[in-house]
Amino acid sequence: MARWEPDAAGRLHDAAMSLYVERGFEATTVAEIADRAGVTARTFFRYFSDKREVLFGGSQMLLDAMERALADAPAGAAPMDVVAAAMQAAARLVGEDVEHSRRRWSVISANAELRERELIKMERLASALADGLRARGVADPQAGLAAEAGVGVFRVGYERWVSGAAGPEAGLAEVVTAGFEDLRNLFAPVGGTP
Amino acid sequence: MARWEPDAAGRLHDAAMSLYVERGFEATTVAEIADRAGVTARTFFRYFSDKREVLFGGSQMLLDAMERALADAPAGAAPMDVVAAAMQAAARLVGEDVEHSRRRWSVISANAELRERELIKMERLASALADGLRARGVADPQAGLAAEAGVGVFRVGYERWVSGAAGPEAGLAEVVTAGFEDLRNLFAPVGGTP
Repeated sequence: MARWEPDAAGRLHDAAMSLYVERGFEATTVAEIADRAGVTARTFFRYFSDKREVLFGGSQMLLDAMERALADAPAGAAPMDVVAAAMQAAARLVGEDVEHSRRRWSVISANAELRERELIKMERLASALADGLRARGVADPQAGLAAEAGVGVFRVGYERWVSGAAGPEAGLAEVVTAGFEDLRNLFAPVGGTP
Repeated sequence: MARWEPDAAGRLHDAAMSLYVERGFEATTVAEIADRAGVTARTFFRYFSDKREVLFGGSQMLLDAMERALADAPAGAAPMDVVAAAMQAAARLVGEDVEHSRRRWSVISANAELRERELIKMERLASALADGLRARGVADPQAGLAAEAGVGVFRVGYERWVSGAAGPEAGLAEVVTAGFEDLRNLFAPVGGTP
């Protein structure tokens, strides 16, 4: 029987993140992560399928938050407002801990395979968002267009937030909200709205 | 010295595409492609770095077409109009041969790794587009937002065009142009513009 390991998942997560930052993702082994967390490699695999999952394990929580936001949006809401609400819900979740996000981003940015994985994760969010819009009765191509644009706003906002380009005090939800406004203005006729 | 091989690149390309459609991408070997094209494997590698490059070799042409469109856009053009012009230029190029595109898409859709590669290619287009907008004096985050939205419109349009969902006669450039209009309308207040 396994020993009782209080918050082994949390300790493994912290140990992995520290090692990825110190040594790089590639150079870190599961044995080292487990060792630093004070557990066995077997315990690591009870919580994570591989080294990568430590970085991408939160995807389902993001999808759930977006789904709740879709369900909560008023029936007659404009598609782009529904998308903005979903991306703001995701932003509130992801934006909770900027220090963690900066460490995560520094690891991902340094590795081509992880950057690709992040891109694929974002594409999954866009697919789920488009499906959610279709379920609300939004037709194609509008559902796909709104979802792609919304996830694009999130990605651009996330990179500005995590890099500090959005300002040291800006919250992610705030940056994402401003991004939707900026994109809307990029569609407005030159010279401003009438 | 190599024998003279009239349009070996073209024959290799056609042979590879036929085999990918017939047998699947994974199951096709370079030796089989070369054999069907009537050349040696060595000749294959003179034109393509690997099997995948047969499917993704056109990226640089796309980037060049987008760059020319950026250079040709009037100095005072609105950023989203510049993006639309770039994506329309890409669409005219990609849209030339719907039968080829359908075969290519059927191969890519059937393979997770190729789908990821296509996603990464699209992200490269978005990065190049954002850089081109910055070079024209468009600030951030606007440059990134406009580029992400524009490539999103292209991708949604491409999938509709290549799948036939856009209608049997629709051209890709036309579908992409309609997509920009649809996205603009998704930002318009509910009830229409004043």
